[in-house]
Amino acid sequence: MIALFTDFGLAGPYTGQVVAVLQQNAPNVPVVSLFADAPTARPKPATYLLAAYAAWFSAGTVLLCVVDPGVGGERRAVVVEADGRLYVGPDNGLFDIVMRRAAGSRLWDITWQPGPLTPSFHGRDLFAPVAARLANGGPIESLAKPAGDLSASRNWPDDLAEIVYIDHYGNAMTGLRGTIVPPEARLVAAGHSLAFARTFSAVPAGAAFWYVNSNGLVEIAANGARADAVLQLAIGSEIAIEV
Amino acid sequence: MIALFTDFGLAGPYTGQVVAVLQQNAPNVPVVSLFADAPTARPKPATYLLAAYAAWFSAGTVLLCVVDPGVGGERRAVVVEADGRLYVGPDNGLFDIVMRRAAGSRLWDITWQPGPLTPSFHGRDLFAPVAARLANGGPIESLAKPAGDLSASRNWPDDLAEIVYIDHYGNAMTGLRGTIVPPEARLVAAGHSLAFARTFSAVPAGAAFWYVNSNGLVEIAANGARADAVLQLAIGSEIAIEV
Amino acid sequence: MIALFTDFGLAGPYTGQVVAVLQQNAPNVPVVSLFADAPTARPKPATYLLAAYAAWFSAGTVLLCVVDPGVGGERRAVVVEADGRLYVGPDNGLFDIVMRRAAGSRLWDITWQPGPLTPSFHGRDLFAPVAARLANGGPIESLAKPAGDLSASRNWPDDLAEIVYIDHYGNAMTGLRGTIVPPEARLVAAGHSLAFARTFSAVPAGAAFWYVNSNGLVEIAANGARADAVLQLAIGSEIAIEV
Repeated sequence: MIALFTDFGLAGPYTGQVVAVLQQNAPNVPVVSLFADAPTARPKPATYLLAAYAAWFSAGTVLLCVVDPGVGGERRAVVVEADGRLYVGPDNGLFDIVMRRAAGSRLWDITWQPGPLTPSFHGRDLFAPVAARLANGGPIESLAKPAGDLSASRNWPDDLAEIVYIDHYGNAMTGLRGTIVPPEARLVAAGHSLAFARTFSAVPAGAAFWYVNSNGLVEIAANGARADAVLQLAIGSEIAIEV
Repeated sequence: MIALFTDFGLAGPYTGQVVAVLQQNAPNVPVVSLFADAPTARPKPATYLLAAYAAWFSAGTVLLCVVDPGVGGERRAVVVEADGRLYVGPDNGLFDIVMRRAAGSRLWDITWQPGPLTPSFHGRDLFAPVAARLANGGPIESLAKPAGDLSASRNWPDDLAEIVYIDHYGNAMTGLRGTIVPPEARLVAAGHSLAFARTFSAVPAGAAFWYVNSNGLVEIAANGARADAVLQLAIGSEIAIEV
Repeated sequence: MIALFTDFGLAGPYTGQVVAVLQQNAPNVPVVSLFADAPTARPKPATYLLAAYAAWFSAGTVLLCVVDPGVGGERRAVVVEADGRLYVGPDNGLFDIVMRRAAGSRLWDITWQPGPLTPSFHGRDLFAPVAARLANGGPIESLAKPAGDLSASRNWPDDLAEIVYIDHYGNAMTGLRGTIVPPEARLVAAGHSLAFARTFSAVPAGAAFWYVNSNGLVEIAANGARADAVLQLAIGSEIAIEV
């Protein structure tokens, strides 16, 4: 299976063209769009989101990951193997947290070259063909060469106390794993202090709370309302933990 | 075929994870997303929308239906067979109108249990695996046990004189079937009195009207404009019929 | 492969129903959504967008194209063959630029008739079944009859100096091909004069510029910002070229 993690959107041409390339190069491999609205051009929140959601997929999955504000510039194009999953995309921090949390990981620089490579759409022209070849079982050595480390030391924390994603319901995911925040802790977001609840129906209508979402991230929600609107949250909003 | 009727949105992780589960459990069954923007957390308008659109699918279709504000609480998880189609989802009113209109219907309580079941995402962890097994032809008796009735008598009307959905163009669907409203009737919505027209091009540019949409629901539209903006309509807006 | 070019949106019922029809009639043909947010009900900008993006697909692709404000009225339903690709949709200008630019093209009027044909959804009831049959290799003569010309002479220019699409990032595509605008030219949009840059990372953060996008259209963008918001651009905004 190939899973897409991008900031391309679904309605416009980008995801469709990428899927067309995958379909032509790996016709028997199913493709699912995991996120088409990852944080636009922001690898820092995106890496925490990716690390939480990629772990849900079984080993052998190829994750095509494109949040790539530096496309066409100098940033490297890489393949990461981490805990049996393969990641294809830009080296701009997007894979930092996946690699840091993996029991084992390896890094390659992509050497495969497409025919035409437009400077603004490496997702379609470079990363998708490489992902398709990997999903077909093509040997990674024919596509990339071993590399030592990611290009920079970004010093990002193990968990990010910020909002990293606002979902369709207005729920605000943080970059904090639920395992590091005790249920008795309160979260302070935009001046509001929030208690833990296990489910939406456990709090009064309209009330905001925090819980651990279905992929293990601490998430701020409101019962029957949009937490992002009620609490004025956006990607990048800082969160404090009060134990 | 499996058809999805949810309030999950498409761009974020929910639909993608559900599709991944379906793909893994029923790899040869095509999946289509019918609605990913069903009325958020509102089973009442959703049941009228579902009843109108499900009828378009052929017998044998499995409809995975998740508009589920009570997820993680006490509401039952059910399978409905109605007119040869199978529906999987929560017992919160979402299937009331489908069952009421069916020539024949049966109800089961889901007994199948997943490995991990997160309290906030039964769509992925419970309903999708059951839907996939049914679509594979798995016997329903291995997944669910016969049940008598839906859990509550909600006393919802046979047709709902409210807006139940605003589409991509700003057209406002009602919960009224076209068969019960004569063409000479006027609809009153947000203080505007609207006449029937057969097609958009039959009225002047900018004019609002009502017609019977391609799935049999009475719908309010405007030629070359968004009816929801022109008339200030939202899901839940009440409609009066003047004959 | 069947590629969809529509203004249907993805989340609501329209694309899903069309995909269901394609799946039932051409189960082995992959379907990709190229645009589900083509300019709503506006064939003029849409034809420049379609011509640029359709050219990216290989010969043999069937493009199902529905931007159809006159649905249910008198406009013809056609099949176009242009440079080895097949296009199915309404004759309202949507195919004008594709045909004008093709080395060779042919036109047919659709004669195939569905069972039920709702007046508001020819995409599902008429165009999708025809597209599926063509994708299956069905002879076009069984579906349509040769026609002379498109129904009207619309006198649209070879390239359109207007915004024809705003993408997910806020980038504004024009109807101008990059091959006709020299890199030293400046574009004037909504009172702003913009220089060429090759990539986003070549200009300062927040700065607006123009470039040639991955499908050959002149596009206005801003580094790390939404060009549509910064420059107040919308579909139809006029562009001037200063050489």
